[in-house]
Amino acid sequence: MIFLDAAATTPVRREVLEAMWPYLTGEFGNPSSHHTLGESAARALADARASVAAALGCRPGEVTFTSGGTEADNLAVKGIALARQAADPAVNRVVISAVEHPAVEESARYLERFHGFSVDVVPVDSYGQVTPKALGDVLRPETALVSVMYANNEVGTVQPITELAALARERGIPFHTDAVQAAGWLALDTKALGVDALSISGHKLGAPKGCGVLFVRSRTRTEPLIHGGGQERGRRSGTENVAGAVGLATALALSQARQQDQQARVTALRDNFVSAVLSAVPGAVLTGHPTDRLPSVASFCFPGTSGESVLLELERQGVVCSSGSACAAGSEAPSPVLTALGIPAEVAQTAVRFSFDSYVTAEDLAAAAAAVGSAVTSVRALGAG
Amino acid sequence: MIFLDAAATTPVRREVLEAMWPYLTGEFGNPSSHHTLGESAARALADARASVAAALGCRPGEVTFTSGGTEADNLAVKGIALARQAADPAVNRVVISAVEHPAVEESARYLERFHGFSVDVVPVDSYGQVTPKALGDVLRPETALVSVMYANNEVGTVQPITELAALARERGIPFHTDAVQAAGWLALDTKALGVDALSISGHKLGAPKGCGVLFVRSRTRTEPLIHGGGQERGRRSGTENVAGAVGLATALALSQARQQDQQARVTALRDNFVSAVLSAVPGAVLTGHPTDRLPSVASFCFPGTSGESVLLELERQGVVCSSGSACAAGSEAPSPVLTALGIPAEVAQTAVRFSFDSYVTAEDLAAAAAAVGSAVTSVRALGAG
Repeated sequence: MIFLDAAATTPVRREVLEAMWPYLTGEFGNPSSHHTLGESAARALADARASVAAALGCRPGEVTFTSGGTEADNLAVKGIALARQAADPAVNRVVISAVEHPAVEESARYLERFHGFSVDVVPVDSYGQVTPKALGDVLRPETALVSVMYANNEVGTVQPITELAALARERGIPFHTDAVQAAGWLALDTKALGVDALSISGHKLGAPKGCGVLFVRSRTRTEPLIHGGGQERGRRSGTENVAGAVGLATALALSQARQQDQQARVTALRDNFVSAVLSAVPGAVLTGHPTDRLPSVASFCFPGTSGESVLLELERQGVVCSSGSACAAGSEAPSPVLTALGIPAEVAQTAVRFSFDSYVTAEDLAAAAAAVGSAVTSVRALGAG
Repeated sequence: MIFLDAAATTPVRREVLEAMWPYLTGEFGNPSSHHTLGESAARALADARASVAAALGCRPGEVTFTSGGTEADNLAVKGIALARQAADPAVNRVVISAVEHPAVEESARYLERFHGFSVDVVPVDSYGQVTPKALGDVLRPETALVSVMYANNEVGTVQPITELAALARERGIPFHTDAVQAAGWLALDTKALGVDALSISGHKLGAPKGCGVLFVRSRTRTEPLIHGGGQERGRRSGTENVAGAVGLATALALSQARQQDQQARVTALRDNFVSAVLSAVPGAVLTGHPTDRLPSVASFCFPGTSGESVLLELERQGVVCSSGSACAAGSEAPSPVLTALGIPAEVAQTAVRFSFDSYVTAEDLAAAAAAVGSAVTSVRALGAG
């Protein structure tokens, strides 16, 4: 099997599982307990937090462990917006881009339904990018928060986060970015990016499902999403998933070390793969930005097919990929992301996304490109038959 | 070490880790992905859900996997109250008991601060029980939800849940119970209990930290706490923690099987332990109900000491326990639970809780009781010196 669906999830890395192991076995203390077993768990959690902080260029106290990227996005969008509204009821708008993950978009819609917020959706260009001008046009004094993802999960387009964050900061508006897909591939220095909040998911990085991180700059007030015993400095209650936090910290450190070696190599492999697919499939269209894109994502539309049929045929040939976001797999509606890029619905439903981890090889991608050529040919032949 | 702090957390059981193993290694699919790897993960999740449903006497569709007991409590209290308020704005009160875990209490306070709810706190008697009369007195037509815990985490008192739930049901008010401490010791048949929602935490049962379950009866509408891709039938978004769900289901099934064998044995051991401690420590007071209490919890106040000093001395002697809830460990304030039972603050700060799992032995408890006697004697001598 050639697994080209790493944007959906990744296997747990051996080193990650080894780092987690003590906390799944003998070191089972509750970090809140005041005895040696608890204190040992608390130390592991503190070490994990310091490691994540080093990766994000922030202070340990700015790192909150969550149950995943979706919870981190919810906490950022709802938590910051509600805290700002509580301080000043006139602050009642949130800005999101047109290509956000549902974790961000649905959090904004919740604010609209339950807290009287208005949601301003910034359009993207045909590559899926938010331009500084487009963002500047929607910022207002009553904007509580801007949330624009770092890199898109369906087409891999990377946003000009530093510029966008600076625009918000000039106006005193907190800026959140969903870095779930960017982590492991792009720089995550929160100071250099100038963001106030940033979300990461463990299972996209070689840590297990069920762990994530939200960075929130210390001066940014945040109403908790999950209330209770006051863990995580009151930002996120509930007994901490110690093993998950250790796993995420390990995976993030490994992926950052590997990123420096692999970014150029994988980018070159991706470009070769894109060329090979475009040659093998007449009429194929690369979606997203041609160069400002994740090294790990090659996404296409194959007019004259259905994406689902191509996926089935590819899987028969041993290539596993997806039609776009795993979260929307099986949905009949055209992808809102592709629609936002101006791609017509009948073309959007022919989308196929190939996403790889940093261990991908030229051989696998050559085989996959050949399979894509024959799969699309078969599907088109059936469609015509 | 004699570990008598099982109410804070438990080690992951070997069978649980074995059941989880495939989903931490080769079977790493995202359950939302439409390929064989994803479908295999989705099947594991469905099997785990069916197993939990069997344990709770409910339908699989009524089981939502969460990141833990605290999230489950938050989802129940906020989710049900907000959905009821959205349907009828006049419904704007929630009822909780005076001895709830902070996960329930702080969720209710959030509704008060952000959604205009009033919180009615039902008092408990000196054993920590909510009487049906006390609950009946606070129920009103505008009550959105009642939340009363099944068994208390600090003193082990078990509530008359069936009677309390029936009172709410007669009035058409949804009833939630936090069964985090009860699970593994008490019957969890949600039909027999007559509850509309019930929370469980994995790590109290021999599953890892970071997994929990909320049962919600199918006709009970619930606004999600975490919005996004619509996983868990829209009730809880975010890629599912497959390994955690499998672990929780395994732990719950094992603990229920074991419960039938061990309940009477452990209850007898607990009663012997209580007698031994009361004999060894002049002036010691058992807190909570003498008989309507978890088999696994023996909680005391030792007037003339400080609880923290007794804990330190016990740990020096190899006995690990706690002053009450791990979530509040280290807090200077007297326990709100003990205060609600009418215990004066200066006595409440002498509290020590011993909580055991179903593997506890008579030998360990005899040794622990002797250690308690000598620890309290030492601490009192120091205090007098």
